[in-house]
Parts: sequence; C-alpha cells; structure tokens
Amino acid sequence: MKIRHILESQQFRDRASLEGLFKEADEMERLSSSGNPPQIMKARIMATLFYEPSTRTRLSFESAMARLGGSVIGTEAASHFSSAVKGESLPDTIRVVGRYADVIVIRHPQEGSSRTAAGCSSVPVINAGDGAGQHPTQALLDMYTIKRELGRLDNISVAMAGDLLYGRTVHSLTYLLAHYNDIRLTFLSPEQLRIPSNIRQYLKRRGVPFKESTSMEDAAQEADVLYMTRIQKERFASEAEYRKLMGCYVVDRKILNLMKEKSIIMHPLPRVDEISPEVDSDPRAAYFRQAENGLYIRMALLKTILGKRGE
Amino acid sequence: MKIRHILESQQFRDRASLEGLFKEADEMERLSSSGNPPQIMKARIMATLFYEPSTRTRLSFESAMARLGGSVIGTEAASHFSSAVKGESLPDTIRVVGRYADVIVIRHPQEGSSRTAAGCSSVPVINAGDGAGQHPTQALLDMYTIKRELGRLDNISVAMAGDLLYGRTVHSLTYLLAHYNDIRLTFLSPEQLRIPSNIRQYLKRRGVPFKESTSMEDAAQEADVLYMTRIQKERFASEAEYRKLMGCYVVDRKILNLMKEKSIIMHPLPRVDEISPEVDSDPRAAYFRQAENGLYIRMALLKTILGKRGE
Amino acid sequence: MKIRHILESQQFRDRASLEGLFKEADEMERLSSSGNPPQIMKARIMATLFYEPSTRTRLSFESAMARLGGSVIGTEAASHFSSAVKGESLPDTIRVVGRYADVIVIRHPQEGSSRTAAGCSSVPVINAGDGAGQHPTQALLDMYTIKRELGRLDNISVAMAGDLLYGRTVHSLTYLLAHYNDIRLTFLSPEQLRIPSNIRQYLKRRGVPFKESTSMEDAAQEADVLYMTRIQKERFASEAEYRKLMGCYVVDRKILNLMKEKSIIMHPLPRVDEISPEVDSDPRAAYFRQAENGLYIRMALLKTILGKRGE
Repeated sequence: MKIRHILESQQFRDRASLEGLFKEADEMERLSSSGNPPQIMKARIMATLFYEPSTRTRLSFESAMARLGGSVIGTEAASHFSSAVKGESLPDTIRVVGRYADVIVIRHPQEGSSRTAAGCSSVPVINAGDGAGQHPTQALLDMYTIKRELGRLDNISVAMAGDLLYGRTVHSLTYLLAHYNDIRLTFLSPEQLRIPSNIRQYLKRRGVPFKESTSMEDAAQEADVLYMTRIQKERFASEAEYRKLMGCYVVDRKILNLMKEKSIIMHPLPRVDEISPEVDSDPRAAYFRQAENGLYIRMALLKTILGKRGE
Repeated sequence: MKIRHILESQQFRDRASLEGLFKEADEMERLSSSGNPPQIMKARIMATLFYEPSTRTRLSFESAMARLGGSVIGTEAASHFSSAVKGESLPDTIRVVGRYADVIVIRHPQEGSSRTAAGCSSVPVINAGDGAGQHPTQALLDMYTIKRELGRLDNISVAMAGDLLYGRTVHSLTYLLAHYNDIRLTFLSPEQLRIPSNIRQYLKRRGVPFKESTSMEDAAQEADVLYMTRIQKERFASEAEYRKLMGCYVVDRKILNLMKEKSIIMHPLPRVDEISPEVDSDPRAAYFRQAENGLYIRMALLKTILGKRGE
Repeated sequence: MKIRHILESQQFRDRASLEGLFKEADEMERLSSSGNPPQIMKARIMATLFYEPSTRTRLSFESAMARLGGSVIGTEAASHFSSAVKGESLPDTIRVVGRYADVIVIRHPQEGSSRTAAGCSSVPVINAGDGAGQHPTQALLDMYTIKRELGRLDNISVAMAGDLLYGRTVHSLTYLLAHYNDIRLTFLSPEQLRIPSNIRQYLKRRGVPFKESTSMEDAAQEADVLYMTRIQKERFASEAEYRKLMGCYVVDRKILNLMKEKSIIMHPLPRVDEISPEVDSDPRAAYFRQAENGLYIRMALLKTILGKRGE
C-alpha cells in the first residue's frame, strides 16, 4: 500500500490495507517489548503542530518517533505561541515547517484543516484530529485493539455511547468497521448528540445494520464492544447545557455485570465520569491497553509513510 | 540499593545509600567533562509532566536524559494544555503516559500527587516537586553540593533562612541531614513562615540540635552552610502580604564579611533579592555550582532507577 | 573565523567571513539532501529560550540541531512558564541553563538582552531576535538567499518595504549589504515607520547610495531584490493605529508584472497580506526557499561555534 498523507480513515479502503498495517503494528509491539525497536527514523524529524491541547495524542506520536530513533520538533500550543498569533495562514506555516521536518503531525480545531495542510505540504501530513472532522489514527488504533482483544473483526456487535454528534472518533471508527462482515451497530446518545445523518446514510448504502437506542442496559447485554465517549465540554456554549448531558451514559459495576464474558469496554480517553474507576480492574476494561496500542499503530504508520531511509 | 520511584528524601534511609549515589554522580561529572557520558539511555524515553512552571528542574532532568543518550517527551504547562483541561484525573494521565515512556518526571501543585502517580504507574515516577510537599532530587543535589564543597557531611552547622514553612527544599534537606553526626541547625524565618512543627518534632526524636532565630548576623558567623530560600510570591493571597516579608533576609557584602572563610552560601534558585549580585563573585557563593550538581545527581538517579538496558 | 557568540550581524565584518559561512551552508545543504548530514552534534545539547513566540525561528534552530545529531531542551513560552514568572533575572537564568546546555538560543522582547545573556554565559549564545534590536541569523540567511538566487552580492539594487522602523531584519540585512560593492538601496515605508536615522547615517559613512520612496511601482521596476516585511501588529498601541498602516505595500500580480525577469521577492515571514497568494507560484517568489536556507545557515553556524567534539 502506497500512502502519502494520513487524513481520514476512508483512505484505508479495504481489509487488506488494514491488515497489512496491523501486522506491522504487531511487529512494532514485538520489537519494542524486546527493547530493540528498529532505528529506522534516525536523522529524520517529525514536527508536531498542536493548535488544540492533546497530551495523549501528541505524546503518543512523539514516543513513536523517538522509539524509532527519530527526533521531534514542535509546539504544544500553536494557537497561543506560534506565528498564527501574528496572523500567518495555515498554508504558510505548513510550507515552512515542511522544509524543517520530514513529516508533520497536525491537530487543529477546524474541520478540513489537515486536508488544507496536505494540499500545500512538501512532506507527508498526518491528521491528529481536526475539529468535528476526523481522527484517523485513533480509528486505526481502535480497530487494531478490537482485533487484538477479540481476535476478529468480522461478526461483532459494537455499541457506541455518548457524544455521537461531535465525537469524531466514533465517525472514523464507523467508516472502518463497514469493511467487515456481520457488523451490528448500536448508537446510544441523547437526542441532541445523535450520530449525524451522513453517517447513517453511509451505513444504509453499505448495508450495515444499525439501530439507535437510549437503553444502556440493552446495549451492554448485546455488545462485544462497548465503546464509550466523553461528552465534550469544550463543544458546548454554556456550562448549563453541558451539565444537562454529562453522565447520561455511565459504565459501572451494574452495567459490567450485564456484559458478556468475552466482551470489551473501550474509550478514546480522556474519560471524565463515563466509566467509573471500579471498572478499571476488570479484564474487560480495555481502554488503557487501547492507548498503548496507539503507540504501535503510530510506529507502523510512520514506517509506512516514511519508509526506511533510501527506500 | 534497589529503588523504584523517587518520591521523598526519606527513602534514602542511611549514609550508605546516599554515598553510593554521590559516587555515581561523581562518575557522571567526570564522564560529562571528558565529553563522553555513557549512552545508557539509548532508545529510552522520559516523560516530563510539569503542572507548574519550573525551567530549572525540567531542563535539568531533560539535559540529564539527553546526555545519557535518551529521548524526552512532555509538556511544560500541563495544567494549561494537557488532558487535565478536559477533566482527566491524574491517575488516568499517568496510566496512559506510562505506556509511552520508561520514566515519568512530575511536578504538580498538590502535595502527595507524586505518590498518587506512583501508585498507578507501570513505570518509575520521579517527584520533581509536589506543592508544599517534597522535592527529593533537590535535597539530594543539596547534600551532594555540601559534600563536594566542604568535603564532609558530618560536623557541620547549617543555617536555613527565608520561607521555612512552604519551602519544601528545606524540609527535604533537613530529613537527609539528620543521617549525619554533629549536625547543628539554625532556622531563620519570619514568624508566619516558621519551620513546621512536624519537622521540629522529627529533629527532637532524632536528637538533632536546632534553634530558631531571627538574627541573620549570628547565623552567618556560625554557619558552615548558609542556605537561603526565596519568599514564594505564589504562596501568598495578596501582593501586600508578600511585600511585607520579601527581603526580610538578604545576603550582601556585610553578611559575607561575617562568614567563615571555609563556608558556603547555597540557594535552590530562582532567587529574587535574597542574595545581592555583589556576592556572586565570591568563592563562597556556591549556588550556581549547586545547580550544575543537579545535572549529575539526576544522571545518577536515572542510572539507578532504569539501569542499563537488559539489566 | 573564530566566533564565540552570535549577537549582531556586524560581527561578520568582511566578505571573507560571510563567504566562509555560505560555503559551509552549501555543504550542509548538499549533505542534507543526500540524507547524510554530519552527526557532529552528537551528545551536544542546545537550549532554546523563547520569551516571545516564534515558531519559524525556533523550529528552524531545533531542526538544524537535530539534523546534526544533537538534542534540544527548552521552552517555547519562557515568559509564561519559566522562572521569569517567579522574578528570576535573565543573567541568573542564563548562568544556570549554561550548565545544562552547550549552546543557548535566545529570543527576547528587550533590545540588548542577548548581549546581556552572552556577558554572563559559560557557553555560546545565539541571538534569535531581541526586540527592535537584531536578528543576525535572519540577516545571514537573507544574504545567503540573495547569493544563491542571483549568483552574486555585488552590484545589486535592493528595495525594502514595510515597517522599516521596528523591522530588525531590515536593519541587520542593511549592515551586511554594506560590505559589498555597487549596492543601491531603496527604502519604502509610511512616514511613521521610516528607516532609523542611525542606519541612514551608517550608510552615508560607508558611502552606500540609498533613497527613501513611497512608490512601490518605481521600486519594483528597479529592484533585483524586493524585500517585503510585515507591519507588526504587536508593536502598535491600538488596533486602529495598526489598521491605518497595514496593507500600505502589497506585492500582487500587477507589481510582479513590473519586476525584472531576473529578480526575486523575499520576506522574512510570517506574512499577513503584504504578498498576495497569487504571487506564490511565480519563480521569483523566493520566500519559502529563503526559509529553507535558514536551516542550512543555522547548521553552518552551529558547526562554526561548537566545532566538532574535541576540536
């Protein structure tokens, strides 16, 4: 598979391209555990341009690059401290940073901004989240996690709960799941945060059965994967509006007891109160393993995009 | 000595464990000066999570890791830009970052936070200051400085001046000094910033003679070590309250003239006006050498905790 | 040429010292393109202390250091998060950071601050811009760009437009151009932002012909180099004052059509609206190549100052 930029999960058009990536990630995990990750990024530089805070995603990318022997330059608060303050356009920033780095990882509040960046970049661009748009590396690590945890991606029932309107991880994941057979989806959300109609239409076109529900209990009993998301405070105009919806879906011991023995709970993190801490010690709590998988997926993606020196 | 986390100075329970560390630090200094520090942290990653600003401590840790060939990921302003903003708990952040890094260095405004972090971390945690709590690596570099400067740690008179209530470096240092013989302590502070009673009681239990005083002149004449601290503006509710106390103890040429020829002035830095610049050129001004010693102590600690790859 | 600190463009007193640097930069460009930049900064550390935002300059220095195999420690927002907040003086910060790093790159809002830093530093200091003062590495990369683009530095007509009062890049560049023969300068600015009188007097002493003008059209027709600068919003007291002057000089297709075939448009970047995007695709638009040249010049400067280990 030849990839230049990583902009949206739809780029991974078939099972073969996904499975090739997962095999590479397995290899990265194996070599990391043995203490000898391949130093294929030596003398290479990654620039991380984060216009929104995101410890997890940024540190995960930076760790992936460092483990492969590469260097990182960047800014953790581009909107506060970069040339953006002086009125520079995103294309200009990208045109310049692309001359300093071999790959650019960008997180930006505006949907479509990573596509804009890719359009004027002389080096590969990786979308690390663009507003309510996409967050493809999250979707890839989510898929990889399901594969590692359940041993399969066909024939699974996935329930997604929380903010399904703005929750871009849910959108990206849905696109990827549609490549597989016998996927059954349940969307759990308050009315104001329903899964967008373009995604519902996409699923219909692809013939993927889904239902919308408000019953956490029903969904928990059925799900092989219970995918929780945070109600994102920063997407609401007022504290009051946010307060009304937070905590609408919570996984606690009661929900856990309804779930199958061979099921998993996932969360892109950070969580606020969607999963109570009592759940953490249950073997079905997969969210911290999920975060670790992000490291291997990102190492695999860096290898896929940048290849070995000289290739 | 087997150490997993570095959380408080009391972990160094005896002279032997301290002296082992100091010997390692000597070796690090020797190898650094020769331009060949051992590259034992190759392919290792340190995460620095700073929820409070601290150029000195952060850069010192990062330099220690880099000199040993390791990489650094992190945030210099975790409370502004990290997932904490989105409501993530410290344990969750640690659980995730521990999967990206081989060691976590944390500075946090809340006392006890580094212990909380260690309690849920899969990798070693180093406390780089937790509120009014501890700052153990500072205490270790302080002890190391006294040893290097005076050639001994027994039989010394130490005067500590300034903010002895919130000044955590003073607390940590006092615990470590109590391991040695013939230590005589003098505490110089305004009434509102007295050394806490739990430390006074500890000294009594250990039979370490100390006195509280307000006379800088007396203390200066007696001291082998005059340890100055900053009145910390950020600990006061109002500017007015701070103004009343700042500048209550100042080392200037007059004080310097009262001091013994074989004595030293120390300061954890940053200083504001506790030591006037005219003192800097005096050979007894040890505070910049003290800062440099921090580098060697932190290199030694990293080696102690992480060992060589494969050990 | 023996250089310790890089503080102002006047340090490069003659053509020979400039041309030696440019030759080194050519070599850096050649080795970078071949994927094998010399790893001469291995085990060396650069500290970047940025008291003002500057993505471009900081990332360019960090990339230069990383490409040469060195490490970087630093802060992208020193005035928000460093010890400066606690009231530490710049000399104290430098004295300490100089013990953690092998070279310090500083950007500071106050004119003369890099000289202050150099005065108390135990390691080389590079001025990355000090207020309305100097920005010598920008001037060097500007000269290098003219040399690469036009093939010569003698016998050229240079028009500089925009904020010539606060625009330090223009000041530094003017000093360097004066080393060459048959230089003809045109200064285009609103009355409030005229080139300072000390620079005009300097040019008169050196016998460099210059004129002041307000006609962009005339300047465009004559110039071998049209050097645009941004009206710097952050130098104005009010938005209204800024609004009056922004956009006073703009390069668009109309201006481009007046320019010689063998001429170039330069800009230190970031641009706001001084050059319209339609100009970007013209071969005479040299500003992004100019930014890239900064990388090679900074690599060359690091080699010049720090030399190889053991030299």
